[in-house]
Amino acid sequence: VTVDSRAVVLREFGASPRVERFAVPDPDEGALLVAVELGGVCGTDAHLIEGRLPMPTPVVLGHEGVGRVARLGPGLERDALGRSLAEGDLVAWASSIPCGRCDACVHLREPTLCGSREVYGINRRADRWPHLSGSWADRIYLHPGTTLARLPDGIGPAEVIALGCAGPTVVHGLRVAPVRLGDTVVVQGAGPVGMAAAMLARLAGAGQVILVGGPAQRLAVARELDLAGAYVDIFETTDPADRVESVRALTTRGRGADQVFECTGVPSAVAEGIGMCRPAGTLLVLGQYTDAGPTPINPHLITRKQLRVLGSWAFSGTDHLDYLAAVPRLRERFDLGRLVATYPLAEVGRALADARAGRVPKAALRAGERS
Amino acid sequence: VTVDSRAVVLREFGASPRVERFAVPDPDEGALLVAVELGGVCGTDAHLIEGRLPMPTPVVLGHEGVGRVARLGPGLERDALGRSLAEGDLVAWASSIPCGRCDACVHLREPTLCGSREVYGINRRADRWPHLSGSWADRIYLHPGTTLARLPDGIGPAEVIALGCAGPTVVHGLRVAPVRLGDTVVVQGAGPVGMAAAMLARLAGAGQVILVGGPAQRLAVARELDLAGAYVDIFETTDPADRVESVRALTTRGRGADQVFECTGVPSAVAEGIGMCRPAGTLLVLGQYTDAGPTPINPHLITRKQLRVLGSWAFSGTDHLDYLAAVPRLRERFDLGRLVATYPLAEVGRALADARAGRVPKAALRAGERS
Amino acid sequence: VTVDSRAVVLREFGASPRVERFAVPDPDEGALLVAVELGGVCGTDAHLIEGRLPMPTPVVLGHEGVGRVARLGPGLERDALGRSLAEGDLVAWASSIPCGRCDACVHLREPTLCGSREVYGINRRADRWPHLSGSWADRIYLHPGTTLARLPDGIGPAEVIALGCAGPTVVHGLRVAPVRLGDTVVVQGAGPVGMAAAMLARLAGAGQVILVGGPAQRLAVARELDLAGAYVDIFETTDPADRVESVRALTTRGRGADQVFECTGVPSAVAEGIGMCRPAGTLLVLGQYTDAGPTPINPHLITRKQLRVLGSWAFSGTDHLDYLAAVPRLRERFDLGRLVATYPLAEVGRALADARAGRVPKAALRAGERS
Amino acid sequence: VTVDSRAVVLREFGASPRVERFAVPDPDEGALLVAVELGGVCGTDAHLIEGRLPMPTPVVLGHEGVGRVARLGPGLERDALGRSLAEGDLVAWASSIPCGRCDACVHLREPTLCGSREVYGINRRADRWPHLSGSWADRIYLHPGTTLARLPDGIGPAEVIALGCAGPTVVHGLRVAPVRLGDTVVVQGAGPVGMAAAMLARLAGAGQVILVGGPAQRLAVARELDLAGAYVDIFETTDPADRVESVRALTTRGRGADQVFECTGVPSAVAEGIGMCRPAGTLLVLGQYTDAGPTPINPHLITRKQLRVLGSWAFSGTDHLDYLAAVPRLRERFDLGRLVATYPLAEVGRALADARAGRVPKAALRAGERS
Repeated sequence: VTVDSRAVVLREFGASPRVERFAVPDPDEGALLVAVELGGVCGTDAHLIEGRLPMPTPVVLGHEGVGRVARLGPGLERDALGRSLAEGDLVAWASSIPCGRCDACVHLREPTLCGSREVYGINRRADRWPHLSGSWADRIYLHPGTTLARLPDGIGPAEVIALGCAGPTVVHGLRVAPVRLGDTVVVQGAGPVGMAAAMLARLAGAGQVILVGGPAQRLAVARELDLAGAYVDIFETTDPADRVESVRALTTRGRGADQVFECTGVPSAVAEGIGMCRPAGTLLVLGQYTDAGPTPINPHLITRKQLRVLGSWAFSGTDHLDYLAAVPRLRERFDLGRLVATYPLAEVGRALADARAGRVPKAALRAGERS
Repeated sequence: VTVDSRAVVLREFGASPRVERFAVPDPDEGALLVAVELGGVCGTDAHLIEGRLPMPTPVVLGHEGVGRVARLGPGLERDALGRSLAEGDLVAWASSIPCGRCDACVHLREPTLCGSREVYGINRRADRWPHLSGSWADRIYLHPGTTLARLPDGIGPAEVIALGCAGPTVVHGLRVAPVRLGDTVVVQGAGPVGMAAAMLARLAGAGQVILVGGPAQRLAVARELDLAGAYVDIFETTDPADRVESVRALTTRGRGADQVFECTGVPSAVAEGIGMCRPAGTLLVLGQYTDAGPTPINPHLITRKQLRVLGSWAFSGTDHLDYLAAVPRLRERFDLGRLVATYPLAEVGRALADARAGRVPKAALRAGERS
Repeated sequence: VTVDSRAVVLREFGASPRVERFAVPDPDEGALLVAVELGGVCGTDAHLIEGRLPMPTPVVLGHEGVGRVARLGPGLERDALGRSLAEGDLVAWASSIPCGRCDACVHLREPTLCGSREVYGINRRADRWPHLSGSWADRIYLHPGTTLARLPDGIGPAEVIALGCAGPTVVHGLRVAPVRLGDTVVVQGAGPVGMAAAMLARLAGAGQVILVGGPAQRLAVARELDLAGAYVDIFETTDPADRVESVRALTTRGRGADQVFECTGVPSAVAEGIGMCRPAGTLLVLGQYTDAGPTPINPHLITRKQLRVLGSWAFSGTDHLDYLAAVPRLRERFDLGRLVATYPLAEVGRALADARAGRVPKAALRAGERS
Repeated sequence: VTVDSRAVVLREFGASPRVERFAVPDPDEGALLVAVELGGVCGTDAHLIEGRLPMPTPVVLGHEGVGRVARLGPGLERDALGRSLAEGDLVAWASSIPCGRCDACVHLREPTLCGSREVYGINRRADRWPHLSGSWADRIYLHPGTTLARLPDGIGPAEVIALGCAGPTVVHGLRVAPVRLGDTVVVQGAGPVGMAAAMLARLAGAGQVILVGGPAQRLAVARELDLAGAYVDIFETTDPADRVESVRALTTRGRGADQVFECTGVPSAVAEGIGMCRPAGTLLVLGQYTDAGPTPINPHLITRKQLRVLGSWAFSGTDHLDYLAAVPRLRERFDLGRLVATYPLAEVGRALADARAGRVPKAALRAGERS
């Protein structure tokens, strides 16, 4: 039996996270230990390391993960879909546990808006038991209440980690702004959220997907994966008004898109997306996770075009289950494995650097490996 | 029989509209002539006269009206609710007729977004037959396709004209963003749209209405009518952040309003309204009818609070019918007649001046009167 | 301090429930003791006593209640709306606590469908600590997780108990099938649910309410309270087809009702309600709480009229809060106190008999009283 | 130029329709003549011939069709998607034109519920100009107001006709009951509507499709086309309760289907479908086009499971456009051409017999062919 586990710990904002060792605890009732196979590296991790989001330190990083059941706590026999669990099973889990008692949880019934969510790899402290609370580690301790599910048959860790938390984030967005069969969907942004949005919009019945983004190397990956029916390169078409025109010209009667999914994180993209919507269309504001401040938006257009501008925040355990269930159908259409580059746990620095530089579409740490 | 009719004509933007005379035509099949009792003066009329909206000239002004059936064209026997029509019946009508053939009419099924709507008092030319196409006149000619209905029993012209086109405009807004029983609704704006929004929100089951507006004289009228349960005077609380705090302090658990109805026409109100919404709340952008350009909005708040920001434009014939049907219930609660000041047709200049200066809550021309 | 509390216990199905005495426990953390003022008698109680619903015995009966805080457990300082709680405060509470872990609670987010709800007065055993688990008692013990709120200012126990659990049940129904401003609503049934439905539909903006029910004495109460704009007496108009015709004749263009709220518990009412709906209208099946078996329904009508037939089951804590918040506005319009007849706890048999015979619109036990 | 056109005319209910000849008229303004390539044979045609539906006689049969533009009337230059039209273009059209003036068209905005729709091949008389009003003919005359569109690039007549009017009928059903990404959808019925429902549900993002139907030969076709992930043969599993159990066993946690699409026309299927729905699930009643009378349904289940039972009737021009737009994506997944057997116009009797006997999945008349 493993008696200790390596884990990548962030002790100080701005400093490099380092591999440390922790004793591996026995799981309490309803909890379990997972031997991590892959821990995804997400754009948010860079923000965390730089201290741009509120969080405690020290923490074990890694909020995306896939692994094998190493040890089940007493009473834990089934996954969230009611299927039996055994040691060795490949599993994935939702990163956060809502409190279940607040206004958002109980009355608004929107656990993603819970202000007290506990999130693996983000706001669980590493200096308290059970320490192993992130996926950039050999072992992760999953508490009771974690939404956990066995991977669908035939699906491997890389396929689940390929979209990272962008996958369930988009599933949640589709709950807020469902795609209707045949919709023309514009996706703004070619990063992980944009790529997941394009894939899932097609899976959800979009008739036409138009991807507006860049740079060229990301669009090349998108084209290889055949994510969209048309592309607008924002580094080529640099004037937002021209991009709006390009998009409209691609739509039925030039009326604009039924839905625009903003997945950029750039505030000005919202104004641009408003221009791309058809009358009575929908703009899903999915990408504004960090506060980059205000941007000029013309509210007259919201009135005159009678638009729906909808925000979507985070994802719930249910969204994560729905995402997992969608992976086999995503893989039928898109070469998910193509997206992932893996790194040994010890090379977390290189993984972060490559991810930051856009040298790989998706970096992941091969956490269980000792090399 | 009347052989001619006075009508207030706008011939040139910026010039005063003048009373002119036109021969009264016989109504064609499906059309009718109405002897106008009251023609409402709306804020839009001032914009039209100043040339701030695209429209042809000359036009007979007046897009709000109530009158008596003067002459029914062949084949017109029933109103839009299927009730028989006779000369002398008090009637009101929707100001616009959608084309019925465009993308908005046929496919989006949103006739308010029809780009070819013909609108009495706005875009029907006075220099073409039948000339009498606005309600600031002794007679108005209503074409086939006009949504026309007898007034509800016991309701008079002043009660219908009291809210003017703001009434059906808000009814349409409620179709876009329905109030749920018990909702806390913030209304931004104490002008005609805001007052109509407060009234109709209460009628639609709002549990709490908070009116944010000014100046003091408008709030005094609002208080007299008991439009809301709480008021925030924007001339007293001049910092938007303080207004947001004031509103939140009035709501359950300080969470903010379930719905915010923006009825100001001031772009910055949208950003302020976003601050007043509870998580997963709704902001109805109802007041941005004229293009006053962009305003700084922080889209991060739309994502983080998972808001719904919904535009609502104009109203349909159905909305107008629904508004008329609501007038008796509005009158039970609110002293509608209190709002209206009437002027002889010939004193259109004084009516416009009083309306512009806010000296009267609602001005209307006593069109049928010869004095 | 009270050292014991009387409570009405059902020990055997079919037998009369009897007053017994239990020691009053101290409340645990997050729990509280309430001195009951009124415990409502509901139609369901008769079914429970007859053993027609699955439940354990013995139980303290009473799932509707209003009382005063007698003792707060450690850590309980605020009600569900965030307002401070003190001994002596008048409070009401939702009867059930969902498990928070099942498919319905977590994934469907519909706690009313939780199969493991614990319900005061119904499925908490009286032979286990803390025994006092129903409102037909001097004291009730409310567990952590109970949705509890202080009564709105100026509202007394009788006004809250007047609609009993029918009030929040209808609030839940309105969540499933919201009334839109101006809707024509038919309410089938003049029992507690039907009366609550008529009241709440009007509060929610219905333009017209038509009540279809009987017998005459119930309709007389309904007329006194001015619940509806029109009434169809099912003992006078005995042929369902005639009732359908009567209703349609009252609606716009004879098209039928926008919404029909079935509140009867009689299966055949559903088929009748389908006939009363307008094309594309909604039938809310709200009254079929007990399984009375199948009834002939013509599904062709559901297709041809493109109807929405929606079920609504039970109510959540949120619904209960929303109901409480609506009581002041209900009372403005309807004489709620008029409905309630109270009985000393010891006269539970007479209360049940009067309720069963329809001699009183609403019976309630004056539980705290020792006479 | 063709000077006359053959057309299959029904002169008397119960008699065999016969080929007759009519002069080919010139198209009026906004109308066009189409040289029919394929006219689909639909189950409804058999009902029409037997006189089981209200319609006038004589009529030219054929409400499904694909053809080439033969002659454009003055002013007709573009199709419903705004693309230019020229002689020789392959086109398809919606079978019905709503009146545009009735309550359903104007106020309910549900043109499918218009009581005055004019339907090619069903209620336009053949003894009045322009006579050629059905698709079982060499030429069909399409009136102004017909929703007409060029076929998508690369799509041929057989691929469009493969699903017949079942295709747009299901598209309309999906508007009433949208499939959400990942939904488990049960399709009841393996006829044309059921097959279209299975295909379109998958296209719309269903995670799992379970087809419940028969007989074996239809299921064999369904399996060949890979319509569903699981099949329940109603001739093997003859007890409805067993079928319900079989379906539930295939669903997540045994909870039942998110959506059940009833596509059978057999009234008892509705009760069975109710059993197959999960709590808070949706049953779309799509198949009850003919009035086969009432069936026993237990409304308690609608309440207790809080179901949504939704009717869907017919389809609009917009639905037809959306269906056409979906054909290329359907063809990517399903071998549509596999379904169609064509017959010369003169062999209409054989086509009807084969269709009725289920010897071919879809019969169509090769109308333009002279052999």
